[in-house]
Amino acid sequence: MSDKMPLAITMGDPAGVGPEIVLRALNEQAITDICNPVVFGDADVLKACADRLQLSFDTLVISLDEWHDQQFQKYQPVVVSLNSIGVDDFRPGVLSAATGQASFDYINAALNSAIGGRLASVTTGPINKLALSQAGIKFPGHTEIFSSRTNAARSCMMQYSEIITCTFVTVHVGYAEVPKFLSPGRILDVIELTDSAIRKIRGHQPRLLICGLNPHAGEQGLFGNREEEELILPAIESARAKGILIDGPLPPDTAFIPSRRASSDAVICMYHDQGHIPVKALAFDSAVNTTLGLPIIRTSVDHGTAYDIAWKGSASPSSLFAAIKLAVKLAK
Amino acid sequence: MSDKMPLAITMGDPAGVGPEIVLRALNEQAITDICNPVVFGDADVLKACADRLQLSFDTLVISLDEWHDQQFQKYQPVVVSLNSIGVDDFRPGVLSAATGQASFDYINAALNSAIGGRLASVTTGPINKLALSQAGIKFPGHTEIFSSRTNAARSCMMQYSEIITCTFVTVHVGYAEVPKFLSPGRILDVIELTDSAIRKIRGHQPRLLICGLNPHAGEQGLFGNREEEELILPAIESARAKGILIDGPLPPDTAFIPSRRASSDAVICMYHDQGHIPVKALAFDSAVNTTLGLPIIRTSVDHGTAYDIAWKGSASPSSLFAAIKLAVKLAK
Repeated sequence: MSDKMPLAITMGDPAGVGPEIVLRALNEQAITDICNPVVFGDADVLKACADRLQLSFDTLVISLDEWHDQQFQKYQPVVVSLNSIGVDDFRPGVLSAATGQASFDYINAALNSAIGGRLASVTTGPINKLALSQAGIKFPGHTEIFSSRTNAARSCMMQYSEIITCTFVTVHVGYAEVPKFLSPGRILDVIELTDSAIRKIRGHQPRLLICGLNPHAGEQGLFGNREEEELILPAIESARAKGILIDGPLPPDTAFIPSRRASSDAVICMYHDQGHIPVKALAFDSAVNTTLGLPIIRTSVDHGTAYDIAWKGSASPSSLFAAIKLAVKLAK
Repeated sequence: MSDKMPLAITMGDPAGVGPEIVLRALNEQAITDICNPVVFGDADVLKACADRLQLSFDTLVISLDEWHDQQFQKYQPVVVSLNSIGVDDFRPGVLSAATGQASFDYINAALNSAIGGRLASVTTGPINKLALSQAGIKFPGHTEIFSSRTNAARSCMMQYSEIITCTFVTVHVGYAEVPKFLSPGRILDVIELTDSAIRKIRGHQPRLLICGLNPHAGEQGLFGNREEEELILPAIESARAKGILIDGPLPPDTAFIPSRRASSDAVICMYHDQGHIPVKALAFDSAVNTTLGLPIIRTSVDHGTAYDIAWKGSASPSSLFAAIKLAVKLAK
């Protein structure tokens, strides 16, 4: 018990690796030393997972009402058990609408408390977009849920690690849909959000890079529809006029070479895989997913539900640990 | 002088880093020990570059006629000087139609000799696509020039390194144009070319991966236009029916994580940056660009003309050295 900040952790999809990595976080002194985890999930699911994997589970369990009424000793790790799903209602590793709905319930409960000011930040466990969709939930991912619920005027995804950091102009849209979501205004928003976040995390003026859309950044109009000249360059010029240090639009494949990584703080990417490919290739297991521009702090693991290895004990909790540590840093 | 195989090296764009890295190859015993370089370029340009950077240049210089007539001691390194451009006709580091035309002349002369059976392989120095275009040459790159001149029924680009190897269904087309070039037949061609090349280089049955097009490989239809199900899966099934070991379509950002790299030989990519981003991030300076499916062997540096550092002596020749070594391996 201490006055360490209360930090929400959502359990993620019950059928995925969320329960086991959350259990590992609750058992990890490096985590409980820096915050008081408040897990939003189902205690019966955590208990079943702990039993199967022979992990300890001795965290205080409370109901949502008890959490709301603060009918418990504050400043200790707790599991807020929502009774959203029972252990017999799903099978580990198997996609279903039921686990999609449960994972959404955990997010909503955590979000409500964070919006109400009860929590310093929310760190989210892995959810499955198809399970969400089967449950009739229209959001493709955490970023969109948080942006919508907090009425954020502008927001973007950031993948953060010590080695490589990327932010994204578009995220969960199909390959062919990307160009129509690019505009100088949206690109400038992401540049500004990136500059502001990195300044806070690193304590110095960031040196930013921005990718083109086309191979070779269009090679001066040879490839593509001049998206670099018409959409990206105007945003760069506006950003520079505001004093932001930014270089680009770069040929996307040269933005992540060793010398560029060493001399920059973050890369602004036009689409999901432009940044996710190098982040996962270079910083697998250590990258943290966070949403910039929200009134509340939100970080997340950078992996999915990994149904194929769920409830088997082999899932690495390192991305969750990194996400919790970044949340503590951003909340201070 | 020896019976080492004659291997063509094109000088690349005279205003780029090509001349200096070719000079370094001619001066490198690890190169001249394994082949007899036949450089197609301009001797005056090489001499001027050598003088400026204080590099040795004592290779035998012959004309194209002398090369054709074999009026020289065979089996030694030579420079076939084409008199395509003079040292006063361009400025190092400055793009022009003149250097684009010269770089194309070198390729054509080397290609003619290779097609005629005089050369075991062609290793190409860096060219600039815009310089080519300004010279009125319609090809966007080496891959397309070689495919067209050799009337290859099917061919594809491969980026090869010990760490990561990628092949490409599309290469030099704009971002928005990629989907229309994807078809099950084209994808199957690239799978087969990859399987065959890796089998030759590594001496065992390759384990291949193939990426989806959309984020999360479309997440079972949530993103994109079901390109994974309609275009990529049929090609995978045809390849498997032919006994090829292939896994996918994978979420593109998980294809390059450490465990996947350790357990596979090559990744088939749908578009340029899907593979070039991880290759340059992970194997910068050691990757080699080669064209599969041609009747002649062709390898290339995996970097561009780098006008900004050209003729300054700082350009690394390691990608050219790796390209020459792979050409020797493929030609044996």
